[in-house]
Amino acid sequence: MTQFRYLSFLTDYGLDDGFVAACHGVGARIAPHATIIDVTHLVPPGDVRRGAAVLAQTVPYLPPAVHVAVVDPGVGTSRRAIAVTAGESVFVGPDNGLLSWAVAAAGGADRAVSLTNRDLWLDKVTATFHGRDIFMPAAAHLAGGTDLAAAGTEVDVTDLVSLPAPVAVVHNGTAEGEVLTVDRFGNAQLTITASDATGIGIKPGDTVLVAIGRRQHLLPYREMFGSVPPGELVVHADGAGMVSIAVNGGDAAQRLGLPPGARVSISPSWQTIHS
Amino acid sequence: MTQFRYLSFLTDYGLDDGFVAACHGVGARIAPHATIIDVTHLVPPGDVRRGAAVLAQTVPYLPPAVHVAVVDPGVGTSRRAIAVTAGESVFVGPDNGLLSWAVAAAGGADRAVSLTNRDLWLDKVTATFHGRDIFMPAAAHLAGGTDLAAAGTEVDVTDLVSLPAPVAVVHNGTAEGEVLTVDRFGNAQLTITASDATGIGIKPGDTVLVAIGRRQHLLPYREMFGSVPPGELVVHADGAGMVSIAVNGGDAAQRLGLPPGARVSISPSWQTIHS
Amino acid sequence: MTQFRYLSFLTDYGLDDGFVAACHGVGARIAPHATIIDVTHLVPPGDVRRGAAVLAQTVPYLPPAVHVAVVDPGVGTSRRAIAVTAGESVFVGPDNGLLSWAVAAAGGADRAVSLTNRDLWLDKVTATFHGRDIFMPAAAHLAGGTDLAAAGTEVDVTDLVSLPAPVAVVHNGTAEGEVLTVDRFGNAQLTITASDATGIGIKPGDTVLVAIGRRQHLLPYREMFGSVPPGELVVHADGAGMVSIAVNGGDAAQRLGLPPGARVSISPSWQTIHS
Repeated sequence: MTQFRYLSFLTDYGLDDGFVAACHGVGARIAPHATIIDVTHLVPPGDVRRGAAVLAQTVPYLPPAVHVAVVDPGVGTSRRAIAVTAGESVFVGPDNGLLSWAVAAAGGADRAVSLTNRDLWLDKVTATFHGRDIFMPAAAHLAGGTDLAAAGTEVDVTDLVSLPAPVAVVHNGTAEGEVLTVDRFGNAQLTITASDATGIGIKPGDTVLVAIGRRQHLLPYREMFGSVPPGELVVHADGAGMVSIAVNGGDAAQRLGLPPGARVSISPSWQTIHS
Repeated sequence: MTQFRYLSFLTDYGLDDGFVAACHGVGARIAPHATIIDVTHLVPPGDVRRGAAVLAQTVPYLPPAVHVAVVDPGVGTSRRAIAVTAGESVFVGPDNGLLSWAVAAAGGADRAVSLTNRDLWLDKVTATFHGRDIFMPAAAHLAGGTDLAAAGTEVDVTDLVSLPAPVAVVHNGTAEGEVLTVDRFGNAQLTITASDATGIGIKPGDTVLVAIGRRQHLLPYREMFGSVPPGELVVHADGAGMVSIAVNGGDAAQRLGLPPGARVSISPSWQTIHS
Repeated sequence: MTQFRYLSFLTDYGLDDGFVAACHGVGARIAPHATIIDVTHLVPPGDVRRGAAVLAQTVPYLPPAVHVAVVDPGVGTSRRAIAVTAGESVFVGPDNGLLSWAVAAAGGADRAVSLTNRDLWLDKVTATFHGRDIFMPAAAHLAGGTDLAAAGTEVDVTDLVSLPAPVAVVHNGTAEGEVLTVDRFGNAQLTITASDATGIGIKPGDTVLVAIGRRQHLLPYREMFGSVPPGELVVHADGAGMVSIAVNGGDAAQRLGLPPGARVSISPSWQTIHS
């Protein structure tokens, strides 16, 4: 029986309503010993991919916890509710891929159950608010020491829904990927890792060729956005180890038209010169 | 002497300033043993009715607590500051109706006091920030075990200001109400309860006639919004047991023009056919 | 060795991403005994002055704590990371003036160090996310009892970067200042204190002459915004003891065009009449 001191909580519920608080309340009633760390509740409604990216990049910095994540456009349909152990943590949420990148980052799924044991749910379960009625109460019971096996039917971990991994292809000295997320500052984080960049010979101080659709930009590759003057574009390895396009003190995603999913490739600039 | 482990906190202070944090700090100084659960701080400025609705729908899921709520357009005028016991909790806020629906949901007011004992306030009280200077410190003292009677002058509970209950009238097989709140997803929650709908013969699987002003819509009544294809309108019983108009993956309030207060009626669709 | 029960946390990280949560996680791992009070994370990106104002006005209401603040447009450049003791608290953040007003409000800096001891940082430090990698871990170690001297090299407190104090000049019976901040409600808080107003003979009940650029307004000076009818402009002393221009139930900053930094002067209205 493992107890968890922490629950983490990510949703697309927003902060305008009492939805998040109702879940906190349910958690507090069942697991009063636990502290809840809110990851974010501002995932765009139904954006499973964005939720998965934020969760995967945040969880490595959280203490071992029962991580509850609910971005669940299929609530009330036949999608499973699951709990998955990975590393030192347990992940609880809908089986729609939301948890998959974080589970992979934690070392991959060890065991999984479908949350079918209604004893761990609230007495009354509504059709559309499973975060409050199923996910949080089940998670809080797990945080209190309930064994995973008691939460429901065992599921083969290879049967869990996974999001396709962020696409980044390296060939001919070019790394091709897409915008994974855009953060508050307008930094466009690519699916290309800092190691991908290193692998094709790009290092801080270089100029890189950035291709966005048919447009091409020659941009400085630096250790940080502060290495260029205010208002200038820069490519750098961000806090998650991913290549990111930024404007020092500005909004790169807006400036360049870079929504999540936009195709971007980078290559050392000598390729341009010699091509 | 009852101690409370939890304080809950709802305001219209927003999250951009340090207002909420100052109140948390005051609470932590006076009742360091207590945990504060934030309900929401994004009630539209001065919207007492919206605050009342969110509070009433959230409190049932919170542990017993001193619930502090401050949406207080009359701060500094003659409106009373009150503490009200109801169920296992104490409610603290301005006597402007904000607390009334939550108090009713908790079983009704048992006792009430006007928070006139300045020993429970901060030493220095400003004219406009009673959340920090009066409500939170008084609430934290109550959470620490101060008796209600010591917080101020007893008030007859029938003298407390109540908001008019959400209007829903059922007659001739039609339920007439209005939009109570619109949530982050654009779901328009009506003042009509799921029981009202059942009472006029509407059940999941049916088609309902929804009248919004002079416009009429025939919409599916389903168990959940996920029961209709993405982008389609649906009527369902929401997580608070109220009839709600939604778009699967979209914004119904925007689509139909349904701000809070808009008049809406629903009836079984056979009425249309035979009228 | 002093332990701190509380950490406070102010940033411009926003709430859409997992940045704040990653820092909470780092704090929880290093100082599991500590409670984190979020001041705000919605400081406009890079707006050091706004962050400084919110911090200085909030900290006086927080319990003794390690106050972590990160609004850091120069992250990764040569600006120092510092910890400063003042009053009963420790302030941690970039040495760009962000902490200076709060430190002054706490009684002035006693000692300061540059956070050069890498043992207190995360093992891996990125170039752009020092809140997670340096500031929070160092702060959490300090909250856990690590001595200030062990956090890095001693710095002369007179060498710390200070923001210029909010400008307010009183002469010839007029107080001249500027808009310090605009809060959620649209209240324009001036750099002019309530004492400045008293000093030039303005008292609640008076009419004041407010000059904004070339425009002049005769406005009521009242104890609170609720003293005027809804929709009307009013000048009053706000919850931080500053003169503020408000609209009862409305947005004064928008109505009058008063962004932070706008020059505003106030004087008793008899000056107008007799000039």
